[in-house]
Amino acid sequence: RSGEMAKLTQLIDNEVFQAYATYAVIVLLKMMLMSLITASFRIRRKAFANPEDTASFGKGENAKKYLRTDPDVERVRRGHLNDLENIVPFFGIGLLYALSGPELSTALLHFRIFAGARIAHTFAYLIPLPQPGRGLSWAVGYAVTISMAYKVLKTAWYL
Amino acid sequence: RSGEMAKLTQLIDNEVFQAYATYAVIVLLKMMLMSLITASFRIRRKAFANPEDTASFGKGENAKKYLRTDPDVERVRRGHLNDLENIVPFFGIGLLYALSGPELSTALLHFRIFAGARIAHTFAYLIPLPQPGRGLSWAVGYAVTISMAYKVLKTAWYL
Amino acid sequence: RSGEMAKLTQLIDNEVFQAYATYAVIVLLKMMLMSLITASFRIRRKAFANPEDTASFGKGENAKKYLRTDPDVERVRRGHLNDLENIVPFFGIGLLYALSGPELSTALLHFRIFAGARIAHTFAYLIPLPQPGRGLSWAVGYAVTISMAYKVLKTAWYL
Repeated sequence: RSGEMAKLTQLIDNEVFQAYATYAVIVLLKMMLMSLITASFRIRRKAFANPEDTASFGKGENAKKYLRTDPDVERVRRGHLNDLENIVPFFGIGLLYALSGPELSTALLHFRIFAGARIAHTFAYLIPLPQPGRGLSWAVGYAVTISMAYKVLKTAWYL
Repeated sequence: RSGEMAKLTQLIDNEVFQAYATYAVIVLLKMMLMSLITASFRIRRKAFANPEDTASFGKGENAKKYLRTDPDVERVRRGHLNDLENIVPFFGIGLLYALSGPELSTALLHFRIFAGARIAHTFAYLIPLPQPGRGLSWAVGYAVTISMAYKVLKTAWYL
Repeated sequence: RSGEMAKLTQLIDNEVFQAYATYAVIVLLKMMLMSLITASFRIRRKAFANPEDTASFGKGENAKKYLRTDPDVERVRRGHLNDLENIVPFFGIGLLYALSGPELSTALLHFRIFAGARIAHTFAYLIPLPQPGRGLSWAVGYAVTISMAYKVLKTAWYL
């Protein structure tokens, strides 16, 4: 058992993998934060999607009026979905990239730029900033993921 | 080759990793089940999103009336999206957590509570149960994921 | 350091894991492509979700008319969401499957059929093909994922 454990921890003791683990958790937590922001806007704007969520505001017609969409709630939800669409590929491709033996400095560059771009994307979406603020931050994160994908395919190619 | 294989299977022979693999597959299968439930409600309620899906009900106006949203279909779809938003972070953070060398008993506690909470969340959404049933089950899964994230960051921190 | 690196690259040097990495990156890139297709349709159809995205078309009422949904944009978005719902389980269950020691030929069969089914699904959604084209391609990918899940649970079962 202890020998096995030692081997397992070698993975997490590798510096590239540690960096990957740190940045992957940071962007996943950032994505999870979107749930709390959505919930907070739903409560502040009184705009809910499920009848049972409005029960505390009264019964019948009185509660029904809170079953509605709100532009700010929908904006946060679009930001959340965009996170799913972009952070899932980063997590998956990044994991394989971290196992493909990149230089530590190159790997850190990829992880840092991606995390920065996605945090910038969230601010650009929620403030909101005028375009091309949001578009650029999205494109930077996208390009970083493509660059990691190229390295994985070059290293592991086996069709 | 056989030496390599031996090393690979050491990962899956580790008990924490086995437990992670078991619970990760269970919650991913649970999430996949939402697709079947959506399809079943779409057929029973005759509520489709794509014109080509309604072709078997006739042509023209006759088929067009089945291109509509249905409250029960939308409810299942919201449950599915909520799964994506919460099971993806569990899968990613949980994988890194399983590699960060937790105690087996602590890891099992995290995995079991998360899986239980998400199964409860699905029942709370689909029945539906009055609040705060769904909210609580969501929060428990969320808290378990945060707890695993804390352990990963404490073990692997490398910015 | 170099000893550690050697151990890490053993993972990516394993042929089953290489095949997994190759196909996982291919389907994740295919999913990422949906973002570009959505953006291209939004621009061609002038159908946007955010007011700041329409600013370049003028101000006030003139820009507001481009804040609308378009059937083709919504179709691509449904295809993208369907990818998330199906490629996420493939990535997660497939990773654990690749670590569960399958035969190389069996693993390749799973990965190839899944990738082919999802590429077929995208064509079926975007052209669109008459049913059951899209339904069948979806079901094939779903069945492959279930088959891998069964192997993982059989190998790693630890509740």
